[in-house]
Amino acid sequence: MLEYRAILPLLPLDLPDYVTLISTSALKTIHLDAGGKLMLLVIDGLGGLPHLETGQTELESARTPNLDDLARRGVVGLSEPVGPGITPGSGPGHLALFGYDPIAGNIGRGALSALGIGLALAPEDVGVRLNFCTIDEDGNVADRRAGRISTDLNHELVAELAAIEIDGVETEIATESQHRAVLVLRGEGLHPAIRETDPQQIGVPPLDPIALEPVAARTAGVLEDFLDGVRRAIGDRAPANFVLMRGYAGLPALETLGEIYGLDPACLASYPMYKGLATIAGMTVLDTGDTLPGQVTALKKHWEEHDFFFFHFKPTDSLGEDGDFDGKVAAIEEVDAVIPDILALGPASMVVTGDHSTPARLGQHSWHPVPFLLHAENIVPDAAAEFGERACGTGSLGLFPARSTMSLLAGYGGRLRKFGA
Amino acid sequence: MLEYRAILPLLPLDLPDYVTLISTSALKTIHLDAGGKLMLLVIDGLGGLPHLETGQTELESARTPNLDDLARRGVVGLSEPVGPGITPGSGPGHLALFGYDPIAGNIGRGALSALGIGLALAPEDVGVRLNFCTIDEDGNVADRRAGRISTDLNHELVAELAAIEIDGVETEIATESQHRAVLVLRGEGLHPAIRETDPQQIGVPPLDPIALEPVAARTAGVLEDFLDGVRRAIGDRAPANFVLMRGYAGLPALETLGEIYGLDPACLASYPMYKGLATIAGMTVLDTGDTLPGQVTALKKHWEEHDFFFFHFKPTDSLGEDGDFDGKVAAIEEVDAVIPDILALGPASMVVTGDHSTPARLGQHSWHPVPFLLHAENIVPDAAAEFGERACGTGSLGLFPARSTMSLLAGYGGRLRKFGA
Repeated sequence: MLEYRAILPLLPLDLPDYVTLISTSALKTIHLDAGGKLMLLVIDGLGGLPHLETGQTELESARTPNLDDLARRGVVGLSEPVGPGITPGSGPGHLALFGYDPIAGNIGRGALSALGIGLALAPEDVGVRLNFCTIDEDGNVADRRAGRISTDLNHELVAELAAIEIDGVETEIATESQHRAVLVLRGEGLHPAIRETDPQQIGVPPLDPIALEPVAARTAGVLEDFLDGVRRAIGDRAPANFVLMRGYAGLPALETLGEIYGLDPACLASYPMYKGLATIAGMTVLDTGDTLPGQVTALKKHWEEHDFFFFHFKPTDSLGEDGDFDGKVAAIEEVDAVIPDILALGPASMVVTGDHSTPARLGQHSWHPVPFLLHAENIVPDAAAEFGERACGTGSLGLFPARSTMSLLAGYGGRLRKFGA
Repeated sequence: MLEYRAILPLLPLDLPDYVTLISTSALKTIHLDAGGKLMLLVIDGLGGLPHLETGQTELESARTPNLDDLARRGVVGLSEPVGPGITPGSGPGHLALFGYDPIAGNIGRGALSALGIGLALAPEDVGVRLNFCTIDEDGNVADRRAGRISTDLNHELVAELAAIEIDGVETEIATESQHRAVLVLRGEGLHPAIRETDPQQIGVPPLDPIALEPVAARTAGVLEDFLDGVRRAIGDRAPANFVLMRGYAGLPALETLGEIYGLDPACLASYPMYKGLATIAGMTVLDTGDTLPGQVTALKKHWEEHDFFFFHFKPTDSLGEDGDFDGKVAAIEEVDAVIPDILALGPASMVVTGDHSTPARLGQHSWHPVPFLLHAENIVPDAAAEFGERACGTGSLGLFPARSTMSLLAGYGGRLRKFGA
């Protein structure tokens, strides 16, 4: 057998870095189209920092008898979504959990938001995030979020902007929530290489949407026309009398979880962006309503129809961003309370983790590695007896890239054949 | 922002596998040009092996109350500079700590030494390390280091060799220390692919500097001419009556720490090679004198001028190479004593580690992973209560590539933006 020659080409000698994960191409050769059901429970922004008085993180402070029991029976570790010291956005954090390269496959917010609220987006389209803002009499930004207007008012304003017409380009605009909306441009020769118009401060005018590469010149002109239309349509509707544009993005073509892992995956998320991300990975987005009980009900209802479930819980991240330590603790306890319902369905393998850390102490996403728990029937439990940052730091999974999540789930779920003879 | 298209080219989509380290191209898109000060304290050859009587390594045997306290308050782990089982040279060991690929960016010793003693070196030049040696009457090597002659005698001999002239090539030669000197060749069509002439044993003649690739044929001839000149100039100056040549090297073009991380980095090292390495990474080499107190004084003096400090301590490696277990223990304690002075300056993040292990039991560099300690304000301390090989083996950083050091320092030091939306 040509063992020597056959192996050599697999790893180019100039590969710059450590390689620890199996490639998606290799996974395609070993996935089964049958096996147990896989459960990925993402507690958004799960990781935290010690409270300055108690010395305990949010997760360590929470009373989580069910998660602790899972930790005792399973294995734990700390996962890095993007890399050491790197603070992940929600997009890269989830891409990594879904098994994609979070850097090469990085998706712009505009594309995610568009998908999340159900707008059609083709690879040649450009999605743009809009924030309604307040412009003062001198033309300067007075409030970058227009006082966080109500979602109802947002709907009214979007209806006004929907009437804007631009030659040769179809525009669609939709409310996201509060001051946030999304614009999709459809047409020939569009390109997202446009400067963001949010000056990131008040007291100065919005920036112009200039082309950052020659190929985006036409798109810059289209956006100028759109902004002229915005001025005409809502210029007198202070506090929401203009929009700032950011997160211009097209849609990457990713192989689906069906193609890579042979799965029929479903998403249980209540927040738009995560539904959008799930769609890109080829998941069916299930209707859950806006509450955790609604998500659990939908999970039970559709359990027989799919074999992979991405279950997303948002409040932990929002409360972490609000700096609300106790609120985040309570939200973690809320998730803990539904664990028995999920386990009762009998997932073959289950991961509980976050897409990144959001310590209440910092009030924002952070670079800290994320607590990770893996439970399955055929497993060697490690010594960790609870689910928390420090316990995970001693776990047998060690500190590892979050992108391992999918092959761990699939392997422990009995959905991967032996690799090689 | 060019979220989707701008990031895409950073990592080729056909990269087969996961890359656990973030690419330098991606880092450039998220570094801030402001933030806290970063401190990298390299205790050269830090890692060791258990003493055969006590069962404790050098670091475990040393009384290090300050480092132990840092370990309690921070996180620890074991770092691999080049790869599992691989013994790093000083060049790769430091390249990895500075965030470079230690294999792709490997720098020859001749180039490092030339830079370290302040010789000008252009990418088309070739640096060569010279060791004065003793040749006996039969033309065999009798002492590969000429009895470790004094640096003063080295200066005298170098003055003799400086007179050697070779057609079409400019030579510059300078003392490094003891029996070590450096030769720089400047001219057209030079190439470092030359066989080293040190036979690595005594009682045999030096090897010839033959070309290892056709492109180096001219350089081989130049070096033959140079060696003829050496024989004429110092052939009667036994014990230092000839030179052995090794470490032929040109200079690689590396992106600087300024370009990648937005840092204004400075080097506090007293040994030439490390200054040279720091220069390649774009650091300002500060004047420290030859002692640890001198290095600390220089650190304090220049603290406000820079935002990254590479502080290099050499004796631990030298004593390890001498097989001096107790001496290495004492040297580690010497470093421990200056930790409070460094902390008093208030670095935002600080790493204490080595560039490789140099166990006194082996008397040479080794492949053993290196104790690593990270301290910062926003951190989840792990259970490790002291700084030592075994404590680090239980740390929450796990066993990880040393190349993570820079992004860990930058992330924990608050100098990196969120990656992706």
